Order: sequence, then C-alpha cells, then structure tokens
Amino acid sequence: MKTKVFYCCLVLFFLGFQGYVDARLLVESKPDRDDTAAYARWLVSQNSWGILTTLSIELEGSPFGNVVSFSDGVPGKGTGVPYFYLTTLDPTARNALKDHRSSLAISEYPLGTCSNADPESPVCAKITLTGRLVLLEANSEEAEFARTALFTKHPEMKGWPKGHDFQVFKLEIEDIFMINWFGGPKPLTVDQYLKYKMNIFAIDK
Amino acid sequence: MKTKVFYCCLVLFFLGFQGYVDARLLVESKPDRDDTAAYARWLVSQNSWGILTTLSIELEGSPFGNVVSFSDGVPGKGTGVPYFYLTTLDPTARNALKDHRSSLAISEYPLGTCSNADPESPVCAKITLTGRLVLLEANSEEAEFARTALFTKHPEMKGWPKGHDFQVFKLEIEDIFMINWFGGPKPLTVDQYLKYKMNIFAIDK
Repeated sequence: MKTKVFYCCLVLFFLGFQGYVDARLLVESKPDRDDTAAYARWLVSQNSWGILTTLSIELEGSPFGNVVSFSDGVPGKGTGVPYFYLTTLDPTARNALKDHRSSLAISEYPLGTCSNADPESPVCAKITLTGRLVLLEANSEEAEFARTALFTKHPEMKGWPKGHDFQVFKLEIEDIFMINWFGGPKPLTVDQYLKYKMNIFAIDK
Repeated sequence: MKTKVFYCCLVLFFLGFQGYVDARLLVESKPDRDDTAAYARWLVSQNSWGILTTLSIELEGSPFGNVVSFSDGVPGKGTGVPYFYLTTLDPTARNALKDHRSSLAISEYPLGTCSNADPESPVCAKITLTGRLVLLEANSEEAEFARTALFTKHPEMKGWPKGHDFQVFKLEIEDIFMINWFGGPKPLTVDQYLKYKMNIFAIDK
C-alpha cells in the first residue's frame, strides 16, 4: 500500500512539474517567426528595458531617446502594455506631460537569442511601439497592477528615493512596427497584439 | 651569446606585449565616472548598437525609435561620431532625409559592466546624443572612413544586399545627455566630447 501511495505521489509530482515546465516554456521559448502576434508579445515580455522616446521640450522638438526599464506584467502574465516608473526630474516624463507622442523600441539582441546575427539584421528581431505616453492616476487599480508588474521585474525600483516623485506611466499603443525576418515589417494590428493570449496555461490558472 | 640574444628577445617581446595590453586596457576598461568625456566616449565606442530616433513621416511627427548598429571608428580608434549603414526601405532613413532631427540612445547595460544595477538605475550609465542625422556623399573620404569603421565592427554588413541601397549616415552631434551616477546628467559639451583622445597610445602609433 505504501509503495502504491509513493508511486501515485511520484506520478502526481511529475505531472505537476510537467505543467509548470509547460507554462514556463510557453512563456519563455521563442515563438515561430510567422506567428507575428506571439513573437511581438514574446519580445515585449522577455525584455526588461528599451529606449523610450519623446519630443524634447529643451531641444526644440527633437526626438529624445532615453534608456528605461519597463514591465508589461508579472512573468508569465504579460499584457503587452508597457508600464514605466518615471520621475519628472528626467526629461522623458516632462516631455510626455507636454506632448504625449512617444515610442518604445526594443531589440531581441540582449536576449541572446539572435545566434550570430548583427543587431541591425532582420534576423535579430526588433519592435517599435508608437503611441501616447500617459501618466496613470496614482490610486487607480491599473497603477496598482503596474507597480506590481514593475516591482516584480525590477525589485530595485521599490527602494528608489521617495523624494524623486516616481510615477507610473503607460504607453497607449497606436502603431506596431516589427521586423523579425527578411521581407520588411510584419503586418500586425494593435488589436491582434493586445488580444493575443501569451500563456493560456498561466492565465487560466 | 645565444643566451643573451634569447633574453633580449624575451624582454623585447614582453615590452611589446605590455604596450599592446596597455593600449587595449586604455580602450576597454571602464573609465572613472567623474571623467565625463572619457566615460561618454567609452560608452559610445564599446557599444555596437543603440536606438536611433527620427520624426515619423507616417505617424504624424511622432518620435520613432529603431534598433540600429553603428560604429564610431575601428576598435581602439573611435572618433565619438556615430556612423550608420541605413536603407531607405526602412522608415528611419526616409524620415531623416525629410527632417534631420534625430537622437541616438545607448545603454551600458548590454556591456555587462553594471554589476547588479537595474538598466534604469543611474549607476548603469546611459547616453543620448541628439543632433542631425545626415547622409554622407558616397564617394567622400569620410564615407570611406565610415564604411571601414562599420564593416570592421559589423562584418555582416559587407554582404547586405546591394539592391537595398544601403548608404552611410552620420549623426552630427549637437547635444549630449549622459547619466553615469547619482546626481542627474553630467555637464559635457560636444567640443569636450569630440576633442577627448580616447586612446593616446593607439592614436600616436
């Protein structure tokens, strides 16, 4: 009897483990390049930083790119919407409050999954999300969700100085430009991108 | 006699090697963070890619960041001026030909020298060069220099399809924004940046 229980437990353990592994794999492995929405969502979810660009107030409307960290959700439950933790001590947040037009550019290169391809090669994917960079209401449900998403991926943020007045911003995506192979940018609507379920296993849990 | 010659050769060999090592170290090691010009030039020379932003023709003047490879010279002889190999099949080159305003943002993060700091932390340096993205005359001496600089750092570029009409662009820097520690952006003029001699040993050779 004891042996039976032991083997049952062993099977259940491995089944459970298998489920966990599948969930992780669904999130982390590189999707097929022709599954455009999956690839775009994977690129955004797997990366932790990119360049966020606004129109510079100080430099007469020039585009101003800035290195920022972001998160679109806790690992395995990305939403596709990038959230940021920005301070108006920095030009990016100041610019966005004056003119919302913005873009976030992300490369596959830092993920280390481009083999030997050059960062500019179409074989090494890149995505640019263009839209409106907006400040979230500090006490809103979405800001709460965003803070959890940000602090999980970027634990250092929790300790950033209170006096610097960091606030949560999000990019309301209006256009998607993604190249992940030869043949130019892949057609992908914002709706297709946002509705894609990154990890059915994790979401259904 | 033979032994003397041998030891002389050995000493000369190590002296030569030492010189080589110094030259490499001067180029590759991370400068003191208070040596602002050195740090900025190091960041630009050590990185091979960044996000180049232009004003989008298609998206009503929105800033449009794009992942690109660049080079400011052959390794050890960087000039500080970033050169690019772009095609007008891509929006970035098309945008620049209409409106030169542009910026190049680069992070220290992919160099792996930020220890455990978050990519957005001021401890992990970032630089944004803002200016005019201009097309070089294909047969000019500068374009020749730029092609050598680009193809040395990005050998894959040499084989990129002729029919895609890749051309050499450069960023004429007008403003520099660099954060490499707490306390906000470091003051650095374009003149201080460009005149800094990255590697005296290599340049004097």
